[in-house]
Amino acid sequence: MWIQKTFQLPAKPRGFHLVTRDVLAQLPEVRDLSVGVVHLLIQHTSASLTLNENADPTVRDDFSSFFDRLVPEDSHYFVHTDEGPDDMPAHLKSSLLGASVSIPITNGGFNLGMWQGIYLCEHRNYGGSRTFIATINGE
Amino acid sequence: MWIQKTFQLPAKPRGFHLVTRDVLAQLPEVRDLSVGVVHLLIQHTSASLTLNENADPTVRDDFSSFFDRLVPEDSHYFVHTDEGPDDMPAHLKSSLLGASVSIPITNGGFNLGMWQGIYLCEHRNYGGSRTFIATINGE
Amino acid sequence: MWIQKTFQLPAKPRGFHLVTRDVLAQLPEVRDLSVGVVHLLIQHTSASLTLNENADPTVRDDFSSFFDRLVPEDSHYFVHTDEGPDDMPAHLKSSLLGASVSIPITNGGFNLGMWQGIYLCEHRNYGGSRTFIATINGE
Repeated sequence: MWIQKTFQLPAKPRGFHLVTRDVLAQLPEVRDLSVGVVHLLIQHTSASLTLNENADPTVRDDFSSFFDRLVPEDSHYFVHTDEGPDDMPAHLKSSLLGASVSIPITNGGFNLGMWQGIYLCEHRNYGGSRTFIATINGE
Repeated sequence: MWIQKTFQLPAKPRGFHLVTRDVLAQLPEVRDLSVGVVHLLIQHTSASLTLNENADPTVRDDFSSFFDRLVPEDSHYFVHTDEGPDDMPAHLKSSLLGASVSIPITNGGFNLGMWQGIYLCEHRNYGGSRTFIATINGE
Repeated sequence: MWIQKTFQLPAKPRGFHLVTRDVLAQLPEVRDLSVGVVHLLIQHTSASLTLNENADPTVRDDFSSFFDRLVPEDSHYFVHTDEGPDDMPAHLKSSLLGASVSIPITNGGFNLGMWQGIYLCEHRNYGGSRTFIATINGE
């Protein structure tokens, strides 16, 4: 069985956001599957998706601190700077973390580890709402 | 329906290359699917695949500048140096960016964002042609 | 055909470990498939999976050296430090490398490149055994 849905999540501030519940709320069809995989793509090049710790919010704060240092905005050698100093770093962070995640489905739910959640990584200062394509295959 | 194909893309210079059209040209079967996912693997450990901005070529130039600084060739602590100074950095860049991408199929095409394209990331100075396995599942 | 299995791999020391054979040993069902994809998730946020060079063990040593420098334990700005200095770097390395890999299946085996193998990346000093969800779809 194939299910494919397009949905938006509202604009979030720059940083790392736990969105497991928001994603699952968009995909009630998962409850009807005993086994499968959901592929989730963020259709943007300045935001990304990753799996990480779902409990302590300081983990997400430290992600912001780390990635802002790893890809500094004031890198003198960037050429693609017309859209502002946060643009080229956002593209690089997007590829370092990746634009999609694939998650196993088991017995009607996401089969993530106890401490795993989905992060929406917003790398722009004003990224606006973000669009996702969820493609679910299972039975 | 399952379709699996092996194909090569010709040698490219070290750097980041937009190959969305080249990949789609190898996979005309995508046109016959209304929904699905294509999994694309580059069968190498010194090149990688990522999704990023498909318009301004200076984004790809800045990718090269950034990743060459992130993984410097003259890192004194590298032990695996027999194949030249670009070899170990190429392995590291490959895993930072990843050897595969999965792309949703909708109505006979890749359902990427308006600004998203597939980058072939060539991390070797003389990498030669590169081999890909595309595995398509859909209906 | 869908197959889904949960399995553990025993505790490994901090570092990068080639586990292609260990994973395949857990998934004998792959031999019965002519085409498909296996999705492999590590259900943890301080270890990760990646594909890289399967031959020279010094590549894995250099991975350790590089990632320990890329994400230093003594970064003064980390807030999430209650579980020790290796914890927050482990979360960051996990997302830089990713918690899952997808591998094409062809004629009863993993269709990786000649030099590609699966790395279990253990980022904790004492991570313990690790749990995986393998979801196989094919025919």
